[in-house]
Amino acid sequence: MGSPGGDGVVTAAVLIIGDEILSGRTQDTNLRDIARYLGVHGVDLCEARTVPDIQDEIVDALNALRARYDYVITTGGIGPTHDDITADAVAAAFGVGLEEHPDILAMMQSRWGDQLNVARRRMARVPVGGSLVNNPVQGPPGFTIGNVFVLAGVPQIMRGMLEDVGPRLRSGAVVLSRTVRVEGSGEGAIAAPLEAVARAHPDLSLGSYPFFTEGLYGSNLVLRSRDGVELAATVAELIAALRAAGIENVREVEAA
Amino acid sequence: MGSPGGDGVVTAAVLIIGDEILSGRTQDTNLRDIARYLGVHGVDLCEARTVPDIQDEIVDALNALRARYDYVITTGGIGPTHDDITADAVAAAFGVGLEEHPDILAMMQSRWGDQLNVARRRMARVPVGGSLVNNPVQGPPGFTIGNVFVLAGVPQIMRGMLEDVGPRLRSGAVVLSRTVRVEGSGEGAIAAPLEAVARAHPDLSLGSYPFFTEGLYGSNLVLRSRDGVELAATVAELIAALRAAGIENVREVEAA
Repeated sequence: MGSPGGDGVVTAAVLIIGDEILSGRTQDTNLRDIARYLGVHGVDLCEARTVPDIQDEIVDALNALRARYDYVITTGGIGPTHDDITADAVAAAFGVGLEEHPDILAMMQSRWGDQLNVARRRMARVPVGGSLVNNPVQGPPGFTIGNVFVLAGVPQIMRGMLEDVGPRLRSGAVVLSRTVRVEGSGEGAIAAPLEAVARAHPDLSLGSYPFFTEGLYGSNLVLRSRDGVELAATVAELIAALRAAGIENVREVEAA
Repeated sequence: MGSPGGDGVVTAAVLIIGDEILSGRTQDTNLRDIARYLGVHGVDLCEARTVPDIQDEIVDALNALRARYDYVITTGGIGPTHDDITADAVAAAFGVGLEEHPDILAMMQSRWGDQLNVARRRMARVPVGGSLVNNPVQGPPGFTIGNVFVLAGVPQIMRGMLEDVGPRLRSGAVVLSRTVRVEGSGEGAIAAPLEAVARAHPDLSLGSYPFFTEGLYGSNLVLRSRDGVELAATVAELIAALRAAGIENVREVEAA
């Protein structure tokens, strides 16, 4: 069975992993965010599946999707608790083992020191042959193996990880990127103007990546589009909207 | 391959049909509403799939899901335009034809008279052997065939149709229902207190079904739960919350 996208079209599927979505406790928003991000990158999202935290279910769905589409993006199940089994399931789907990744372990030792317990170390495990997906928000990175990208389920963290997926996708689209940096204001203060600008430009990707470093906090707002004119106009519009909302320390910076 | 729910558990899957979900233009909320509704009715939602408006994709997904789970609920693709192909796809999946349902046609003739055009008549088509699912909100009904229920994609209409699905589900759960009726206030006025009460009682199903008849308008708020004590307390809480929000014409009524 071929890809439904046809010749020359790059295709993808999303696999949402988590009982909390199927029980109705949590409203998924990752599918829409991924769909829009892929659209900007010229990749067609062709299918999505939501499965429970059951290894065989994850393995079967992942193997069906990765055989059929150019890329698969999974969300959820990469935390420290017993029901976070995505890494195990991805390793099983690829028929490989899991190993602690030295870079994640080093990050964790630096972050946790003596408090690096067994539960946290679970999050250092990556399928053999996999490589890391940067996490600019908080917590350990995601990973990629074959044509599969494994991201967090928490929407803010998932969006941050996505920024490291786009550059690895094979697609005809040249995606331009510009970054607006806000210092001294948290996401709560900037959320309303940000959302207004994002809604006014549905074909553009706009992500917010907060930072807390060296006593400084704020957020990098990454705008991506294939249309350089719209991108430039939206950068100006965003800065104006933030200033109109009383956010003073706002400026465009080189990409983070 | 058996049902993943195990002995005695009644299982279901959701099939979301629509390009607008996979392009990211529309945020799906039906999955969460259906999940919560099924939970109250003692049915386990085991999987969800989202597919585009492509007949072969819908047929393949529907046949996979209806073979594996006790029930499948589909949303979307039952409107009057060319990309509304759910009825065609369901008929193809069951290997039957489509026919205009006399009850829908009668409703439409009464509603539209001379304006009943070809596009609208498309919505009267039901797979041979199917029966109707009541639509208490607006527009034509949904339908059911075999173990599949075919509902609208518009969230408010979908929720209204769901009320006619629950009583047809085989499950061990006895679900109690009470109805609070608001007259002279639209959904915009009651949305905030309604949401607050719904959030405070995640295990209870709370649907709002607006009516516009004989110059009167308002909404029937249907509460469902397996816990009669919580149900009674929530009815009282909801009436109090609505009155506190300035909604005066509120009372409990016999089930609509």
